[in-house]
Amino acid sequence: MATKTEDYLGITDYKVIGTRPIRHDGVDKVIGRAKYGADIDMAGMLHGAVVRSPHAHARIKSIDTSKAEALTGIKAVITVEDLPLQEDKIEDLGEGAANLQHLRANVLADGKVLYHGHAVAAVAATDIHTAQEAVDLIDVEYEVLQPVLTVQEAMKEDAPLLLENQTTESLGEDTGQKSNVCTHFRHELGDVERGFAEAELVVEREFDTATVHQGYIEPQNATALWSADDQITVWCSTQGAFTVREQTAQILDVPVSQVKVVPMEIGGGFGGKIRIYLEPLAAVLSRKTGRPVKMVMSRTEVLQATGPTAGSFIKCKMGVDKAGKIVAAYAYMAYESGGFPGSWAAPGAMCIFAPYNIPNVLIDGYEVLVNKPQTMAYRAPGATNAAFASETIIDELCEQLGVDPLEFRLKNSAREGTRRADGPVYPRIGNEECVKTALSSEHYATQLSGKNRGRGIASGFWFNVGLKSSAAASVNSDGTVSLVEGSTDIGGTRTSIAMQLAEVLGIRAEDVKPQVADTDSIGDTDVTGGSRTTFATGWAAYQCALDIKEQLIERAAKLWEISTDDVVFDDGTFSSSDSSKTFSFKELAGMLDETGGPVMGRATVNPSGVGGAFAVMIADIEVDTETGKVEILRVSVIQDAGKAVYPSYVEGQMQGGIAQGIGWALNEEYAYNRDGLLTNASLLDYRMPTCLDLPMIETHIVEVPNPGHPYGVRGVGEVPIVPPAAAVANAIYDAVGVRMTNLPMSPGEVLKALWAKNGGNGTA
Amino acid sequence: MATKTEDYLGITDYKVIGTRPIRHDGVDKVIGRAKYGADIDMAGMLHGAVVRSPHAHARIKSIDTSKAEALTGIKAVITVEDLPLQEDKIEDLGEGAANLQHLRANVLADGKVLYHGHAVAAVAATDIHTAQEAVDLIDVEYEVLQPVLTVQEAMKEDAPLLLENQTTESLGEDTGQKSNVCTHFRHELGDVERGFAEAELVVEREFDTATVHQGYIEPQNATALWSADDQITVWCSTQGAFTVREQTAQILDVPVSQVKVVPMEIGGGFGGKIRIYLEPLAAVLSRKTGRPVKMVMSRTEVLQATGPTAGSFIKCKMGVDKAGKIVAAYAYMAYESGGFPGSWAAPGAMCIFAPYNIPNVLIDGYEVLVNKPQTMAYRAPGATNAAFASETIIDELCEQLGVDPLEFRLKNSAREGTRRADGPVYPRIGNEECVKTALSSEHYATQLSGKNRGRGIASGFWFNVGLKSSAAASVNSDGTVSLVEGSTDIGGTRTSIAMQLAEVLGIRAEDVKPQVADTDSIGDTDVTGGSRTTFATGWAAYQCALDIKEQLIERAAKLWEISTDDVVFDDGTFSSSDSSKTFSFKELAGMLDETGGPVMGRATVNPSGVGGAFAVMIADIEVDTETGKVEILRVSVIQDAGKAVYPSYVEGQMQGGIAQGIGWALNEEYAYNRDGLLTNASLLDYRMPTCLDLPMIETHIVEVPNPGHPYGVRGVGEVPIVPPAAAVANAIYDAVGVRMTNLPMSPGEVLKALWAKNGGNGTA
Repeated sequence: MATKTEDYLGITDYKVIGTRPIRHDGVDKVIGRAKYGADIDMAGMLHGAVVRSPHAHARIKSIDTSKAEALTGIKAVITVEDLPLQEDKIEDLGEGAANLQHLRANVLADGKVLYHGHAVAAVAATDIHTAQEAVDLIDVEYEVLQPVLTVQEAMKEDAPLLLENQTTESLGEDTGQKSNVCTHFRHELGDVERGFAEAELVVEREFDTATVHQGYIEPQNATALWSADDQITVWCSTQGAFTVREQTAQILDVPVSQVKVVPMEIGGGFGGKIRIYLEPLAAVLSRKTGRPVKMVMSRTEVLQATGPTAGSFIKCKMGVDKAGKIVAAYAYMAYESGGFPGSWAAPGAMCIFAPYNIPNVLIDGYEVLVNKPQTMAYRAPGATNAAFASETIIDELCEQLGVDPLEFRLKNSAREGTRRADGPVYPRIGNEECVKTALSSEHYATQLSGKNRGRGIASGFWFNVGLKSSAAASVNSDGTVSLVEGSTDIGGTRTSIAMQLAEVLGIRAEDVKPQVADTDSIGDTDVTGGSRTTFATGWAAYQCALDIKEQLIERAAKLWEISTDDVVFDDGTFSSSDSSKTFSFKELAGMLDETGGPVMGRATVNPSGVGGAFAVMIADIEVDTETGKVEILRVSVIQDAGKAVYPSYVEGQMQGGIAQGIGWALNEEYAYNRDGLLTNASLLDYRMPTCLDLPMIETHIVEVPNPGHPYGVRGVGEVPIVPPAAAVANAIYDAVGVRMTNLPMSPGEVLKALWAKNGGNGTA
Repeated sequence: MATKTEDYLGITDYKVIGTRPIRHDGVDKVIGRAKYGADIDMAGMLHGAVVRSPHAHARIKSIDTSKAEALTGIKAVITVEDLPLQEDKIEDLGEGAANLQHLRANVLADGKVLYHGHAVAAVAATDIHTAQEAVDLIDVEYEVLQPVLTVQEAMKEDAPLLLENQTTESLGEDTGQKSNVCTHFRHELGDVERGFAEAELVVEREFDTATVHQGYIEPQNATALWSADDQITVWCSTQGAFTVREQTAQILDVPVSQVKVVPMEIGGGFGGKIRIYLEPLAAVLSRKTGRPVKMVMSRTEVLQATGPTAGSFIKCKMGVDKAGKIVAAYAYMAYESGGFPGSWAAPGAMCIFAPYNIPNVLIDGYEVLVNKPQTMAYRAPGATNAAFASETIIDELCEQLGVDPLEFRLKNSAREGTRRADGPVYPRIGNEECVKTALSSEHYATQLSGKNRGRGIASGFWFNVGLKSSAAASVNSDGTVSLVEGSTDIGGTRTSIAMQLAEVLGIRAEDVKPQVADTDSIGDTDVTGGSRTTFATGWAAYQCALDIKEQLIERAAKLWEISTDDVVFDDGTFSSSDSSKTFSFKELAGMLDETGGPVMGRATVNPSGVGGAFAVMIADIEVDTETGKVEILRVSVIQDAGKAVYPSYVEGQMQGGIAQGIGWALNEEYAYNRDGLLTNASLLDYRMPTCLDLPMIETHIVEVPNPGHPYGVRGVGEVPIVPPAAAVANAIYDAVGVRMTNLPMSPGEVLKALWAKNGGNGTA
């Protein structure tokens, strides 16, 4: 279903890129041989468990561990005092950043607990049951404080403060003002006041979005062994082994080279497996006991105490002129940070108006502490909330103007040269091509009929990131190549990276044997996140292949006793320039010993040429006006992949993002009671969509090559989660005439909106 | 104790090379954390056991596995028919070679058993006890044949043939003659007849040396998992993971890239852990059962059925002229191959006269099948047997000439430009320096007095090998470097390789984190054998460091905005050529992200510039003439290391080689009864020396840099085992006046020689 718009770098006939070979890790995962963190077992291994706060906000008055320590089978108990003190220093995690004092206090509470489930102490025992028993024997005396659960509450001047020394940084300056508002930032473009003055039509609304979880299937886990020579090995489920290494080394106050992180297979992450939780606990418990310590979270712990995405309060206002051009846009974006500073308004602000060419923009962003777990990235973090606001406003503008929402998007589309409010000027992007593909799609051409049915459109943007990646590879004598790379494989990247190496060398994807290595075995590689892995680690593999190619040309020249300039390499064949001699890749690979030994390649990248990604979603829904339940009838997603290396994975990412976005739109939310206690910390009560809730999601891959990547690749993993909330909200309006401004748009909320509309006192 | 003769390449002040840092793998090995093959455990793992021949020579008439297969807990039974047929093709193993048909028939007997303990079938069961029970239930019907146990017997025209299609290759031609003699080769230099005609004094003797074992502590083991996608993983104890990969892939008839070999820590090898035994059995049993299969040999199996070194029969004759110059030398060297062809006469022939400049030489070598396990390398394979002969003759010549044995060696010493009988002309070598160091040693200057005490001198040579090695390394942000290499670490090579990388980069050995990788994670690397690892893999690490250095110079230039030509790197510091700016290695390592990402290096080598190694041994002994027991009083060994990278390891190799050589000299032997059954297959009955049997061995490292290596390194691991047998024999003669010509010179043999001498009918 790929819509091929152009080919990049004059290459018109990729042999491997764009195909769908059998994935290298497929069989092991299907038959259950793939090893996840919970599969780890070692001689003498202890099991750890965590004491967690029963309160949302409280001061810790004392911790009495004596009863637990006296329990037979308990080998160690730790509290925050067992973790070295930290400087007030920010550590970049690739996607998100961590203040080390806060990271420490999140790992084990330091004087205060800031959310229900906050870790207070940890134990290690000979078995998990004894460990859990010990958890119950640890007496923690709390002074319970008033919890703060929404950004609106938290921003009030008299709100209880979560972090008593937290002051607001406003527009880059520390105001000295103690507050739950950690950061206020602003993006300005043009003159927004004059813009609104010029507008013919202005729409303004307020939006609330709930805190939601990434919903990965595999809970966090970590096993650590602190050896007698202070070498620390950590096995865990993570999006970035090097990021875990960096954070763990910082928290333990040891050099990074003292920590080796072995990334196990990962059962989903979506941004939630970047920050560390258990790793330093397992390590310190191992240091204390001299034995390996394994810790695995329960689902309840995952939901209570790992980073969900930020709930938010957004005010958005947009104005169009007579010609139907957007002339001004304003957004006020207050995002939850959770118990410690986080920053998801920032990426939200980069995305909120990104698909449009708008001359006058003002964005005010706020990062606000609330008594919830410290928020973490979730697939295009911040952008779904933002698009829910802006794309709903756009829909309302279109409705009031009486224009087709796709035509409106086409007219106002950002394109090469458009400046975004936060600064960047776009290189070649594919937003228009996506909108055009949507316009010409069979789905859009098909009339939707039936009562209470509606169609919604929304666009989405995600900027994608580059960051560090490394690759090394060895040529085997049988003509295959062993590839070592450091990117955790969440969505099939072993294969999508291997393919980029194979393409250069003219071999099959199956002839590359890719491996995700531990942190001792490959150069630094940033997280699998930010839609960067196929883009950046694939790029490293491409460069690594060039390194191999160059060496193989030298070997051929040596064997033929000619100059390297006289060796031609094309489509897996080395030839002398007079074509009198040829070697296939496999033949030459079998002759390396005689020409100087094996051949290895290596490459590292830290690319800047990320290509922003755009997506358009068409959603057809039906509202059951009796129950408020929204049924998804048909969904299409159109997305610019730059170049789809492995189209099935791109389609999978598109479908996965849409599915998660629909869950966020309709059902998912952290249900806190008034005491700040999470009341739905299980997957029975935290309602994620299942395959029964969704139709087959139709995918249209658009390929506008990213000029910043050798194969034109753009990130594809995140942008599809951006449009769904808005598209579904717009479809609900189309179906039943109510404008939903809060997420989730659960049956009760839809019913309330319908009642309000029918009673004449709602917003719609 | 290093005797520094000169420095290489103008480098006079190494910072790391030549020091003795704490070894990287030390703590893990001392505290028992290091993982050996026998430590492996996996979910669902089966245990394998092998049915072995109770006969030395027999035809297999039938194998009935039905009773074993019916046993509860037995999951699979295999025989040779489960292994794919092989071509008659030679596979180079780095140290030694294997004919694939023979390798297959050695792994599981094909129609005939050729030695006591030859594997006939294998089973896999849920536990080892059931597996062993099943072994006893397999009925093998044999037609017992006459065994052939010595080369002299085996070479007789009417000797029973072991391999019925084996013909003799003589001087490179297949004679078509069916025989137990696999190979007859010849080296000629000058005119040996004329040489002997010119000689004033000629001594000729015959020597017999017993079959001995390498005596590594850890038995062979292998665990294999054949996954549903035909990816095969093997964990084992080996000197070369890539060699195991190659052989296993060949025997299983799959491409090498389908096999991943994970080398576990190795508890000794000495040449005995290069050929595969259990690996294909575990793999095929895993394929049949879908489960991992672990196999660990007992000590008895190790002694009965893995490759010992060749026993031999050698005739040696040397002549000197009036001036005391050796003018002619002849050797007839018949070595045991065991049940299948092996080739240890060949390296023996390269070494037998190697320390001397002899104008006329003739050597006839024979590789002969006998009903013993297929022989394998053992530390300078073939050379100890050879030196036992030649160095005993030299001693006798010196005695008859009345000259000092060291002065005689100095006068006749091989030096740069000397041609060896097998062809090579020496580059710069250190034989003279070793002899001079011995001459000037405190030990040699100290008079030995006392009844029945004697001093013996012997020289030794080993040519060393180069072969393939690969290294890759990543710079960590804390200024350390993670090094990945493929050489099994037997004697501390993680450190000696890491040091060669550290020296280039001006960092400490401790700042390198070396790792021995599996075959998917690094380029092809040949066995840890042939004294090659510190030489060749160290060279790869050196080259890898140069690759890193070059990239770091580029980074510094980028940061300083100057040309790379204007960046100077010296002793770990990068400076601008005007010295206005400097970065330490660590500082620059912390700034890589900003300058283009991480830095990785890689290098592969297949060097030809091996430097031959020489050693001289001085042995003081006392003979108990009542019992024949020889007590070692004092031993010194002088050896040219080229450049001792880690002097303690060089000293350890010297001491280890001497210790093993003394065991070989005095006690060790395979005791076969007349039916060809091994009667001493345990370490209680196979007598290796313990620390109670030996004094502290004094070491003198001579450093004559090898011009073929960047640091002047020569191989050091093998040559010290070459002189001991001869040195001890010469000392016995000095003590009690008997010339011992058979190994081992056990108390009984010494007594017999004394009785013969006293009876006047002996050779002495």
